[in-house]
Amino acid sequence: MHSLVVHGGTGAIPANLPEAQRTAYAAGIGSALDAAFDLLERGGSSLDAVTTAVRILEDDALFNAGRGAALSSEGVAELDAAIMDGRDRRAGSVAGVRHIKNPIDLARLVMEQTRHVMLIGQGAEELAIEAGLPLISNHYFRTDERRRQLEAEQQGRSVSELVPAAHGTVGAVAFDQMGNLAAATSTGGMANKRPGRVGDTPIIGAGTYAKNGVCAVSCTGHGEYFIRCAAAHHIVAAVEYRGMTLQQAAQELLEREIGKFGGYGGLIAIDAHGQIVMEFSTSGMFRGARDSNGLRTIGITR
Amino acid sequence: MHSLVVHGGTGAIPANLPEAQRTAYAAGIGSALDAAFDLLERGGSSLDAVTTAVRILEDDALFNAGRGAALSSEGVAELDAAIMDGRDRRAGSVAGVRHIKNPIDLARLVMEQTRHVMLIGQGAEELAIEAGLPLISNHYFRTDERRRQLEAEQQGRSVSELVPAAHGTVGAVAFDQMGNLAAATSTGGMANKRPGRVGDTPIIGAGTYAKNGVCAVSCTGHGEYFIRCAAAHHIVAAVEYRGMTLQQAAQELLEREIGKFGGYGGLIAIDAHGQIVMEFSTSGMFRGARDSNGLRTIGITR
Repeated sequence: MHSLVVHGGTGAIPANLPEAQRTAYAAGIGSALDAAFDLLERGGSSLDAVTTAVRILEDDALFNAGRGAALSSEGVAELDAAIMDGRDRRAGSVAGVRHIKNPIDLARLVMEQTRHVMLIGQGAEELAIEAGLPLISNHYFRTDERRRQLEAEQQGRSVSELVPAAHGTVGAVAFDQMGNLAAATSTGGMANKRPGRVGDTPIIGAGTYAKNGVCAVSCTGHGEYFIRCAAAHHIVAAVEYRGMTLQQAAQELLEREIGKFGGYGGLIAIDAHGQIVMEFSTSGMFRGARDSNGLRTIGITR
Repeated sequence: MHSLVVHGGTGAIPANLPEAQRTAYAAGIGSALDAAFDLLERGGSSLDAVTTAVRILEDDALFNAGRGAALSSEGVAELDAAIMDGRDRRAGSVAGVRHIKNPIDLARLVMEQTRHVMLIGQGAEELAIEAGLPLISNHYFRTDERRRQLEAEQQGRSVSELVPAAHGTVGAVAFDQMGNLAAATSTGGMANKRPGRVGDTPIIGAGTYAKNGVCAVSCTGHGEYFIRCAAAHHIVAAVEYRGMTLQQAAQELLEREIGKFGGYGGLIAIDAHGQIVMEFSTSGMFRGARDSNGLRTIGITR
């Protein structure tokens, strides 16, 4: 048994999203899903699968991560990412990087080549330079859509028609043939955020968590609420210690924890047996799932 | 009933710590403890009490937070802090600030005056400037002891005789007369850390967490392990959902979670009834506790 689930963000996705956009988003999700699943099929690790899926979504300008990231109030892309290995709960994360084409690769480098878990800002970029990762101009990340979105946000206009899932995130969770879980998440964060704002994505226990024998989780949504609820770890603890199924734990988090505070969002997760869960409390979540029993599904709205 | 507990870091504290040092550390802990407890006595909030205690410990050059912070590999002080309000689980945190005399005040400002939970680096310092917090030269934080410690670390020499609890942290947890819990933590992080490294202190759910009706927690120790275990939230979940006492949860975390990975550290916490817990898996932890039943205790080693 092996399985993979990816998301491309959640939010106010209009039910009448034009067909051309729907097709483009589905193609983006599908290409990350299939490339990473092929890797699992060939016996690759869950860690490599989630890295691959997130890297592809970072490179796709439609999604709020890597190229096409939401812009800060100063018009700059500030990127966050995290990865966690369910085998030994090693983890790596970066926040506030501005010149790293694929922040998920740098998060993995933090995990594998330093004695630290989290590096931020210029310190994180120093590691990239030492490791020979190419640095890239911040202009690479800024698309016309994101500039228009920022302008609309700053003028108080609605943005959901400009950019569906405006405050999105991308993420992936995988269960490989060895039975190992891994999770990865990457984002440009909230549009019009204060420079330096960090959401739940790079916070181990909030946006990202993985523990073999229990489950792995990648969250998306209004990050501040996910931090306050320690969302990803809340789910892991609910499955491990409260006898909940992963599905029940996901619903409980969104309704009774995040929802109680007035927050919204979604998450993808896989349990210890490879079973996939995709839950969201918004009108939609860009998502896709595959498993070795032949499941292949891509969804946008409910 | 009201109660307060503070810590000034954990680590390899020599059993034969010279009497003069022992007295100085105990005086530092005592002064934070008494000032913040007086505030609780007069009906003040747990939030104000933990802010006050941490601010006093930040100002005391003996402890690794604010003035006297451990220095990065480049000899710079990079400061992290977090605060959490048990009433509604609002939280604020900052990481990688270099010019803020009292990082705990800035963390509280993030909680109370922005729509965000976490701000890092220059973005966090921008908020300080807007709010009129004075910025201060990084030289203010750097003491001769910390320079000698950094030199010793970089030469691979033992540092425990130079600076007890070398990789310390400061923190406070309070339970006020209204029955509200709060927690706060502040640190200069690990000596000789890579610039940009963030430990568990400013990670809500790792180094700091507070939830009314359950418990509030402030951790100290080898931060990377506390992040990987989502330490503070692990304890909250154990008390809320696993029927453990706070004492049992604290011991389980240090032995079976942090300890299993080869990590070490300690924590202070208060449960829903105001009962204080202080646990550590190292040779010592600078600590002090007071409650309205007349308890007043200050400890260093076991």
